[in-house]
Formats: sequence, C-alpha cells, structure tokens
Amino acid sequence: MRECEAARWLMERDRFLILTHVRPDGDTLGCAAALCAALVKRGKTAWVAPNPGVTDTYLGDIQPYFAPAGYEPEHIVAVDIATEGLFPADFAAYRGKTELCIDHHPSNSGYARHTCLDASAAACGEIIYRICREGLEVMDAEIARAIYLAVSTDTGCFVYSNTTPTTHRIAAQVMEYGDFFREINRRCFQTKSRKRLELESRLLQSARYYEEGRVVIGGVSLEDMAQVGASEADSEELSALLRQVEGVRAAATLRELAPGQWKLSLRTDADYLNDTDTCALLGGGGHAAASGATVSGIDRAGMERRVLEAICTVLNGR
Amino acid sequence: MRECEAARWLMERDRFLILTHVRPDGDTLGCAAALCAALVKRGKTAWVAPNPGVTDTYLGDIQPYFAPAGYEPEHIVAVDIATEGLFPADFAAYRGKTELCIDHHPSNSGYARHTCLDASAAACGEIIYRICREGLEVMDAEIARAIYLAVSTDTGCFVYSNTTPTTHRIAAQVMEYGDFFREINRRCFQTKSRKRLELESRLLQSARYYEEGRVVIGGVSLEDMAQVGASEADSEELSALLRQVEGVRAAATLRELAPGQWKLSLRTDADYLNDTDTCALLGGGGHAAASGATVSGIDRAGMERRVLEAICTVLNGR
Repeated sequence: MRECEAARWLMERDRFLILTHVRPDGDTLGCAAALCAALVKRGKTAWVAPNPGVTDTYLGDIQPYFAPAGYEPEHIVAVDIATEGLFPADFAAYRGKTELCIDHHPSNSGYARHTCLDASAAACGEIIYRICREGLEVMDAEIARAIYLAVSTDTGCFVYSNTTPTTHRIAAQVMEYGDFFREINRRCFQTKSRKRLELESRLLQSARYYEEGRVVIGGVSLEDMAQVGASEADSEELSALLRQVEGVRAAATLRELAPGQWKLSLRTDADYLNDTDTCALLGGGGHAAASGATVSGIDRAGMERRVLEAICTVLNGR
Repeated sequence: MRECEAARWLMERDRFLILTHVRPDGDTLGCAAALCAALVKRGKTAWVAPNPGVTDTYLGDIQPYFAPAGYEPEHIVAVDIATEGLFPADFAAYRGKTELCIDHHPSNSGYARHTCLDASAAACGEIIYRICREGLEVMDAEIARAIYLAVSTDTGCFVYSNTTPTTHRIAAQVMEYGDFFREINRRCFQTKSRKRLELESRLLQSARYYEEGRVVIGGVSLEDMAQVGASEADSEELSALLRQVEGVRAAATLRELAPGQWKLSLRTDADYLNDTDTCALLGGGGHAAASGATVSGIDRAGMERRVLEAICTVLNGR
C-alpha cells in the first residue's frame, strides 16, 4: 500500500490503537506519537498501546499518548514492527489483528492485512512524516518533534551509514516547526549514565589487541555488572565502543550472561574479516558486519581464547 | 560584502592563496578545499597556504590543495578566520594583506579589506556552499565532499545546538553528489585513538561528584599523559566528556599544563551555574556555558578544593 493510500485508509476509519515493538527505540515511539497526534488533529480517536519496555529516556515522549484502561479500538496499526515476533509479550492479543503496518524493514514478514513499506527509508519516521504531511495534511510542533525523535535516533544523529539526503531534508523541514532538537539531541546523544560510563571504562581496560591492533577482544563479566550496579539498559550496544578504536577492523565484545555462559558480539569491516563465518565456528550467526554467538560451560579466559582462535582461523583461511 | 558580491569579486581576479586558521579544524580546511577546487574549475589559479598544524585526521582532505613552493599569489583570501591573531605563526607575512575574508564568527574583527560574514551560519562551509553553487555556479563531488566535511565537523555531525534547518538542507544537497559521507562520518565521528580512550578512562575514574551528582570534578595529570603516551591532540575537547554524565549540570575538567600549574575547563548549564563568575574567582574567564581558568603553584588536591570552593560560592550566592 502506498503512503497516500495508507493516509486515505486511515481517514476513512476511526478508533485506532497504534502498536510499537519490543525494546522500543526512538523510531517506533516517535512514529507512534506522531501518527497518534496527527490522527487526533484530524478529528479521530487514536491511542498508542502502553508498551511496558519504554526506558526513562523516552517515557516523556510517549506516555501522553498511551491508551487509557478500557479503551476499545476498532483498528490496529503497527509502526516500525517487522514481524509479530517483535510484539511485546503484552501485545499477544493483537496477533493476527494488525490491519495496517507502516515499516521500513526489508525483512517485514507481511503479517498485517495492509503493509506500507519503504525499505529505502533510514527511519520509519520518514514514512510517517510523509503520511502526516502529504496524506493527512497535518503538521505542527508536536508532530514535528516526534518525527525528529524518530529520524535522529534511528541514524545515531545522522552519523550512521543508513542516513540519506532525504533524512536530512526531513530533519530540516520538521526543525522549522519548533525548537525541540536541542533537548532531544542532548538527551539522546549527549548523555550517558554513570553506570554506563563505568562499564565502558571497564570494557576498555579489559581490551587486548592482536594482529597489530586490527583485532581487539574485551569483555564485561557478571562481577563487573554487579560491582557497577549496572542494568541491562546500561550495557546496550556496548559492542559499538571497541569498534571505534582507531585501527581496529574486528572488535569482539564478550558479555557474561550467566555464570559460565558468555556471549560474543562481533563487529567487523566486512572486507577484513567475515564475521558470520567466525561466529559460525562458535555455533552462532548473524549478518554481514554484525553477528554473535553464545558459548556455555566456559570461563572468561577460555572464551577469549576460543574467540581469538576462531578469528585467526577465518583470517588465515582467506 | 554579500555572497554574490564575493563570488563576483573572485571571478574578476586570479592567482589566489587561501588561508586557514591555527589548529585547523574540519570547517576551515573543508572551506579552503572547496573554494580552491571551485576556483580551479572556473579556470582560476588557486592554492591553499600549507598549514603546518593539520592533524592526520584531515591531512588527506587538504594536502592536494597545498600551494607548491614558490607560488606567488596576487590575492589573499581567508576562510573561517575571525582575527589575524588566529593566523598560524607561518602566516605572519600575510598580516594586513587579506583582501577577502569569508567567515561565520560574530566576533570577526574586520581585518580584511572585504568581509563576507554570516553569523547565522552554523559552519563557514554553509557560506562557501552558496558562494560556490550560486555565485561561482560550480558544484561537483569534489567540492561537495569538502563542504560536507566543513558543515558536519562544525556541528559535531548535526548534534550541536548551532545546527539549523539550513545546515541539514546543505548536507542533503551535497550528499547527492557522491558517496563520501560514510567515510567522513566514520573517520571524524566514530574513531578514537587508543590513547584518547585511555585518557577518557582515567578522567572518568578520577571523577568525584558533589551536590547530589549535579557537580563533577575530574582531571588528567602530566603523569597520566606520560603514562598513556598521549599528545595534546589526544586531550582535545576532553571537557565535553564529564559534561555528558547523566544528571551533571556543571562539569569541571582539570588539566595539569606544567608541574604545579593546573587549567580548569568548566562546562555548565547556564541556568544552574554561572561559569564565568566561577572562573573569575580563579582569575579566569570565558563565555556563557564554557569558560576556564589557570592556577599556578598548586597541586591536584589543592586545585580540586579551590574549584569546588569557587563553584559552591557561586551556587550559594544565587
């Protein structure tokens, strides 16, 4: 379904419930907030399904849109959700009931009755922007703010390789509606918890370099997590850190998930090391440039050795 | 002088030398490279004055434009240089000789015969973009790449508060000319030296928090620098790190410049702590939200105490 058709479909109906994905990020939440606000401004009744996984970072952005208890929707709309497997556990009742899915994931499974998909969009927020502005013909500071949240967070503030000229153009257009970008940038891209910084520090201290600095292996143990008092949220995306080290082309970040169980996250230059092959040697998998594996019955030193062996095997097999 | 006038002035002359500022950043270098390439494409002879301060990060971007030995220019053009005091030492011979200065600093001293100034531009690269595209009527992948370098680095990749819709629009426009943004983003925003990371780690380890976490004081000693083997380049903008800590509203970063001499860099929320007043108590100064002071004949513990006292004095005086 094209964007203008999705907008028409929405305008012909009422009483919507908007779904976001598990471990919600700024894109799914920004899309939900923007679409909800736009529909209400066009005279519709629309709410966002309360997602229990929202972190403090985004709670203020989405809470005003959460449906009140007892709300009975007539139409279910999903935003930025590629498969029903990504529904939060609380949303089990909505399986098989999504009428419209608006998404940018090429892997979208087509679970909804209608799917409005643009896999070239860096963020689902780009699609929602056009549906709101061109389809529903509504745009204001409230909607613009939510769109900015979506597109900026899904591109790491316009730094990731998925960013396109369209992303920048949409950012420029929504920024004209209000002075919200400074607060969002500060909160989402320029703030780290003390626990997070402490974890990063420990990870860097643990790093060992091989192959003249092109390979790095570092890790965070359960003891590190406990001593820091860190939560799962504090350890999200830690694997990006070692990848940033100058000269590194393959970064292996180890996390102890349970006593004697370690998870590898491998981030590589695809033309230096095939990370999928490397992780396959450890029973794992993934996709180009980012994959992982979990090994049980092993201690930290043993895991480091196994990972280094796997990397060297693949490097030598070139 | 308006941008179209600056372009006309350039088109009516030939044999240019383009100057960049001391400790050159991506904006001054990107502007120089873009303007030089555009002038050459319009049939002019133009070179950039070799700036000895260029770091490895930017050397590849600017070296091809450096003037050969013995080049004798007829017209001197400065880009992104607010005052002659910001000329590199090697450029002393050009003092008083700048005919055209293109800049975005409101503090520009007007040292050039003609000044083309737009203080609303986030980066000088925005002005150069318009001079090239609208004035000189030339734009291609080479010029676009240099413009992207300028505008992205001066806004921290579109995250700093100086970013505007215009910045995003120019990014979108230049990105249409070639696939250069990924390499620039990775090099400028997603790479840190091991020495830099080690310094950050030591700074974080040294941090002490006060006022329920709203105030933080941390530092890097000469011994830290020596043990890490870090250069001045590795310690640039370290003061931004503590400012990122969640909950912090005033971040004091101390650097030992010489034995017994410590420099404070203070970064604050202006509505929480007046940093200029605080630094004035230590004999320093600066501007809103970012200022500094240097104290001699003091050890680390003494400096920390003096800084905390100054902060508390200003906080209690509110």
